[in-house]
Amino acid sequence: MNIKSKFSNKVIDLNASAIREVFKLLGKPGIISFAGGAPATEGFPIMRLSDIAKEILRENGGVALQYSVTEGYEPLRLWVKERLASQSIGTDVDKTVIVSGGQQGIDLAAHSLLNEGDAVICEEPTFVGGLNAFRSYKAEIYGAPVEADGIDVEAVEKILKEKNNVKFIYTIPTFQNPSGITMSLEKRKKLLDLAKKYDVLILEDNPYGELRFDGVDIPTIKSMDDDGRVIYVGSFSKILSPGLRVGFVCAEKSLVERMVICKQTSDVHTNSFTQMMVYEFVTKHSIDEHIENLRALYGKRCRRMIKAIEENFPPEITFTHPQGGLFIFCTMPDGIDAKEIVKKALEKNVAFIPGATTMIDDKKVYSTFRLNFSNMSSEKIEMGIKLLGNVLYNEMK
Amino acid sequence: MNIKSKFSNKVIDLNASAIREVFKLLGKPGIISFAGGAPATEGFPIMRLSDIAKEILRENGGVALQYSVTEGYEPLRLWVKERLASQSIGTDVDKTVIVSGGQQGIDLAAHSLLNEGDAVICEEPTFVGGLNAFRSYKAEIYGAPVEADGIDVEAVEKILKEKNNVKFIYTIPTFQNPSGITMSLEKRKKLLDLAKKYDVLILEDNPYGELRFDGVDIPTIKSMDDDGRVIYVGSFSKILSPGLRVGFVCAEKSLVERMVICKQTSDVHTNSFTQMMVYEFVTKHSIDEHIENLRALYGKRCRRMIKAIEENFPPEITFTHPQGGLFIFCTMPDGIDAKEIVKKALEKNVAFIPGATTMIDDKKVYSTFRLNFSNMSSEKIEMGIKLLGNVLYNEMK
Repeated sequence: MNIKSKFSNKVIDLNASAIREVFKLLGKPGIISFAGGAPATEGFPIMRLSDIAKEILRENGGVALQYSVTEGYEPLRLWVKERLASQSIGTDVDKTVIVSGGQQGIDLAAHSLLNEGDAVICEEPTFVGGLNAFRSYKAEIYGAPVEADGIDVEAVEKILKEKNNVKFIYTIPTFQNPSGITMSLEKRKKLLDLAKKYDVLILEDNPYGELRFDGVDIPTIKSMDDDGRVIYVGSFSKILSPGLRVGFVCAEKSLVERMVICKQTSDVHTNSFTQMMVYEFVTKHSIDEHIENLRALYGKRCRRMIKAIEENFPPEITFTHPQGGLFIFCTMPDGIDAKEIVKKALEKNVAFIPGATTMIDDKKVYSTFRLNFSNMSSEKIEMGIKLLGNVLYNEMK
Repeated sequence: MNIKSKFSNKVIDLNASAIREVFKLLGKPGIISFAGGAPATEGFPIMRLSDIAKEILRENGGVALQYSVTEGYEPLRLWVKERLASQSIGTDVDKTVIVSGGQQGIDLAAHSLLNEGDAVICEEPTFVGGLNAFRSYKAEIYGAPVEADGIDVEAVEKILKEKNNVKFIYTIPTFQNPSGITMSLEKRKKLLDLAKKYDVLILEDNPYGELRFDGVDIPTIKSMDDDGRVIYVGSFSKILSPGLRVGFVCAEKSLVERMVICKQTSDVHTNSFTQMMVYEFVTKHSIDEHIENLRALYGKRCRRMIKAIEENFPPEITFTHPQGGLFIFCTMPDGIDAKEIVKKALEKNVAFIPGATTMIDDKKVYSTFRLNFSNMSSEKIEMGIKLLGNVLYNEMK
């Protein structure tokens, strides 16, 4: 049968995330990968989680293995709510629920808000998982460039003035993926003002916010939200473990209720067992101490990568200097196709993500690429950047 | 702000699943619940899973806690593929992948196939999680009654003749939810013939198929599928644990690829750790022996419930006699509103699901209701059915 003729228009043009696809190559022996967005495997508190897992099942296995409520394991839900409150996130109009990783928060917001033909304003470059989620609901996507201090708010206002179909602005203001850039406080305020002025929502995706290793924290947009206009998505993926798939959303109650109904139809509820594991870990052990260790580790790796880039890349290549998160974003001279560089680097066993996959029109030629520094040891960072530097010099000579 | 004005048309009329909502009441002390679709908590192999969980993290924690591929943990994916092959499920045109519970299989099929205005043919009554998934993509839903030997295939053909917007037929042919009825082999063949004749797909949802305690197995529709027309969804929820959220899909490759892309945007991948737990359990322990024990337990509980119904319900009430699965479906005389009976029974601490929530137009009055027999002890089944019998006699006198 011709099954392709049956596909929904929504998904027929969707491409598998290049990042997830590159992920499949990572089994290749000896590969040095700066491609994914994976946290450091050495950073996982494996022994403590092993003990926790065993104990939960022995003491409360009936709950851990049974169906649970869609909103999430109540003790964890309340813990997250309190922690967010300590970060000035969440007001009386809001509700906090658990989701199956931050990606599901993005998906549920998109499912609950977007009609076909509605639009989302995204940063360019941005997280491909966000782009694909919006595409999968047949949304239009308008891009606003990311500048050194975050999204170009004038570009955002221009779009909002010209287009009347924008439902929300999708932003990763802190240690942005892929750029590593953090939006200034001024721009955060301005973006929220624009959202109010043009009556659109903001989807604030903040998976990396806790991973600051330099500079000082800047308030989240959600912490300045006084009328339930900001949908805040957070995650345990980068501060504890992505494999457990536990994230959270704090947003206006009636919207959260819609998202919960969509979650019922999507996966019924998030894994009971791993929600309990996260809860036991964050209450029995010091999550803040654990995060402190991750910050130190990622800061060290980031500095090592920057040093290696300075020593090994052609000087024409510029790159961002993140104060936290997982990524450095590089820009080669115009006209060089980063996709070609990726292919050549893969031959040398070095993987990373071409900028095109983080752009709305991923068919165009972009001279940018993203490097992840969290998942490789300092030695591999040095070795990989050296190899990549050779490839770049060869291409640019 | 008026956030409701921002909701997508797709979700604005969706109601929370009454089943999930009733679930919230189950914390009420002393309640006897026939409401959910939960397997027996006593049936969980808690100690073995506790040991497995601990070992996986100690021996392979880096993999269990890290990001993984969207298609699923490869050893489990291959194990499922082989097991399905042993049940004659899957041909060269098909691919098997892991999903976050059977519900996600339904959702991904809907997301990948349905444009707004496309239609799905559903059994009536049917699984509300299916109905809500289709509704959430703004699909039209046509109903075909469930008869004693399964879906009314003539009603299906009538719809297919009259309507040209049907994308697929959604069916739970074995121990159907909520009716407990199993479709005859003849009707399975006829349904597949109709799907071919009118060029539509079949979404075969089979979470209960392994739980037969009486009679003999009937081949799945998928086992007769020779051109990739049947999307088969299975799950470990009812044979191992629903809290772990692990299910699987076997369907035509190109469709599965679309579903995998939608899964990337939905939850990136299914929990790595719990996939590994399932794999260790099914390979280290005898899953078939475990299922055998569940069958014996559920058979006993089903027979106990039927006996209690015979002894305690007004004789005008008819009910199904399932040969497996989790549910008995009862029909009161016309005109009695099961929703009202549910309210009165809840006052007596007995919970169950009114038939209306399993129907396409859930606002109409239905005199049917669903009883789950897997999750309560024989003693509670007897006590609960007695209490419910009193309520019914009071209402029907």
